Amino acid sequence: MAASLLSRMRVVEGAAFVAGPLGGMTLAQLGADVIRFDPIGGGLDYRRWPVTKDGRSLYWAGLNKGKRSIALDLRSDEGREIATSLITAPGPDAGIFLTNYPAGGWIDYDHLAGRRPDLVMCHILGNADGSTAVDYTVNAAVGYPSITGPEESDGVVNSVLPAWDLITGMTAATGILAADRHRQRTGEGRLLKLPLFDVALAVLGHLGHIGEIQINDEDRARHGNYLFGAFGRDFVTADGQRVMVVAITTRQFRGMIEAAGLEDELAAIEGNLGFELRSDGDLFTAREAIAGILEEWIATQPLVDIAALFEANRVLWGPYQTMRELLESDMRASTSNPMLGQVDQPGVGTYLMPGSPLDTGRDRVPPKPAPLLGQHTDEILSEVLDLSGAEIGRLHDRKVVAGAEPI
Amino acid sequence: MAASLLSRMRVVEGAAFVAGPLGGMTLAQLGADVIRFDPIGGGLDYRRWPVTKDGRSLYWAGLNKGKRSIALDLRSDEGREIATSLITAPGPDAGIFLTNYPAGGWIDYDHLAGRRPDLVMCHILGNADGSTAVDYTVNAAVGYPSITGPEESDGVVNSVLPAWDLITGMTAATGILAADRHRQRTGEGRLLKLPLFDVALAVLGHLGHIGEIQINDEDRARHGNYLFGAFGRDFVTADGQRVMVVAITTRQFRGMIEAAGLEDELAAIEGNLGFELRSDGDLFTAREAIAGILEEWIATQPLVDIAALFEANRVLWGPYQTMRELLESDMRASTSNPMLGQVDQPGVGTYLMPGSPLDTGRDRVPPKPAPLLGQHTDEILSEVLDLSGAEIGRLHDRKVVAGAEPI
Repeated sequence: MAASLLSRMRVVEGAAFVAGPLGGMTLAQLGADVIRFDPIGGGLDYRRWPVTKDGRSLYWAGLNKGKRSIALDLRSDEGREIATSLITAPGPDAGIFLTNYPAGGWIDYDHLAGRRPDLVMCHILGNADGSTAVDYTVNAAVGYPSITGPEESDGVVNSVLPAWDLITGMTAATGILAADRHRQRTGEGRLLKLPLFDVALAVLGHLGHIGEIQINDEDRARHGNYLFGAFGRDFVTADGQRVMVVAITTRQFRGMIEAAGLEDELAAIEGNLGFELRSDGDLFTAREAIAGILEEWIATQPLVDIAALFEANRVLWGPYQTMRELLESDMRASTSNPMLGQVDQPGVGTYLMPGSPLDTGRDRVPPKPAPLLGQHTDEILSEVLDLSGAEIGRLHDRKVVAGAEPI
Repeated sequence: MAASLLSRMRVVEGAAFVAGPLGGMTLAQLGADVIRFDPIGGGLDYRRWPVTKDGRSLYWAGLNKGKRSIALDLRSDEGREIATSLITAPGPDAGIFLTNYPAGGWIDYDHLAGRRPDLVMCHILGNADGSTAVDYTVNAAVGYPSITGPEESDGVVNSVLPAWDLITGMTAATGILAADRHRQRTGEGRLLKLPLFDVALAVLGHLGHIGEIQINDEDRARHGNYLFGAFGRDFVTADGQRVMVVAITTRQFRGMIEAAGLEDELAAIEGNLGFELRSDGDLFTAREAIAGILEEWIATQPLVDIAALFEANRVLWGPYQTMRELLESDMRASTSNPMLGQVDQPGVGTYLMPGSPLDTGRDRVPPKPAPLLGQHTDEILSEVLDLSGAEIGRLHDRKVVAGAEPI
């Protein structure tokens, strides 16, 4: 096998929940050696739901795949000294630290850079001022919950997907690689501060929401399941299946009209409107009329017929699936997808695990399980810190470190 | 000013909509020279809503900040040859191509690598097999819409935020930097294929959804605005303000109970349950009882009092805001936030724009506007392809290239 993209890069991670662990795992799944340290017995996210009937966290397992684990008594000076030594250990491919632990005390760039001046550290924060914020409070603050859900509702709809955490984790991975590139060229280390709130706010800017308010003085309305700015909505077929049908472009829209044989009905809509539908914006303006004729047609057709007509006319569409339906009947969610493998997670069992969605070709790293907590304590102390067996034994005796518990 | 992290890196982008453009913009906002090519007159996303009253796309402007733009007749062999030459131009910091255009013809790694064997190309796809999928159809396929929204509803709730596109864009940026690192060390180029569907499916694995079904044989229920696995929900204050209150940890939970003075009510809940609430999972199990006592208390208090008590007890909470409220009254969304600047977008006006949420310190790149379409056509042809003024003039005359139209 060829060397993976990030082979030899070493990242030390002290992080909990989604964003930090995802950032580290992203690098691990591209081949980096990611050493995660945790308090003995596990940190705040070690028992996070969903859990198995034995209380093992599928969430923790999911976000720490392919890392190595060392368990330390982080309340003791000696445990913190070990973490500091790992973070600042020498080597041109080491000296990278990813954390979302609160700043202060030993989690401080200047302190750590005193030990290794070229340290690259990505510090994920809630807010830029260091105050706490999590995906759920950030999402409340940036306005999406009040424009999500049925048009007639007046409350808020929270997101089930922790999208801000996920985007933040990927931004952390990007930032670390960018800072590492800079260090390779200049020898300079760097502290990257990454506030979760700023990630969300930046997205509001990127997608045009800020301009919509500040330039257009318009408030985005709640549009239910319609997508904004073009055509798309959910529909129910004659056999009770639900499908998402989308036309982002007028070409896709014409395909949709042809597939359904709704040319006359469309002409009537255009007659009523007094203009032809020539742009994606026009499709949005006429969305209810379009949805009306499409809904009526879809309601008379079984899914299998719709699928055939839509495929033949290159309509952009897809069925709604539950997660179980996805896993039980969608070939993309099986081992025929090279991203996925059946992997044994010790203490949990064998199930489908994803590697990186980046298909790198011949050196793609297959999915690997998460470590047991403390599984690599001894080998990390030996390899990275060059400690002897006797020294490692004494650290165990004094409960400064711990290995994996038997399953 | 110090050199930015990605100074001298050059990326050529041929992409539309969200994921590809976000990936390129992420690199541009860290200092890379990102050259975006578009068809003369603009591509499929050039008029995407939201638009100003003059029809200028705030969406396009938002996703192309800080790039350079060249406009080409991509239907002509000559236009494609220019794009190919840009993609494969020499230099150790060049030879990086990001696209989500359909594969085939000249958009082909082997074809391009024939001109520059060490090309790094990130190709964003809908599905791994090259078939079309977009954020909306992917989201329908992976199951979130059926577990989002009020518990009593039985339909689907689409996401307003194109989360899969956003995560994919950040994954593309990560992949490009990882492949560039590998190239710097080995001289090898790389094709990275990145299917949008696989990004979403991987997240299902990372967050434990796959294990929940395959190991626990459980289907995630719809839990309305409750967060899963700990405590959190929206509440309405006495003065009609809505707040999100969260306790991910039992420490945060105790702070919440103390802030509200609900110790006796909590004891009664624990008495009824027959167990103490000792873990985040316990909080989820008892969520309705907890929400009941908290809802009653919050409904009697104005927001200002709740805020003071919550802050004093380090409760994790935050108000719901509309996007307008965020921009008009939240200091984090003002120029006091160093990520943001008031930037003039030619043809649109001056409004608040974000740079990268990664605070890199002294070399942080300030937010820059998007280019006008074709704004940099001549300078790119001259600088990168070394064409003479006369050669560039002939390309304009034959309408192979175009510069910016007057505003």
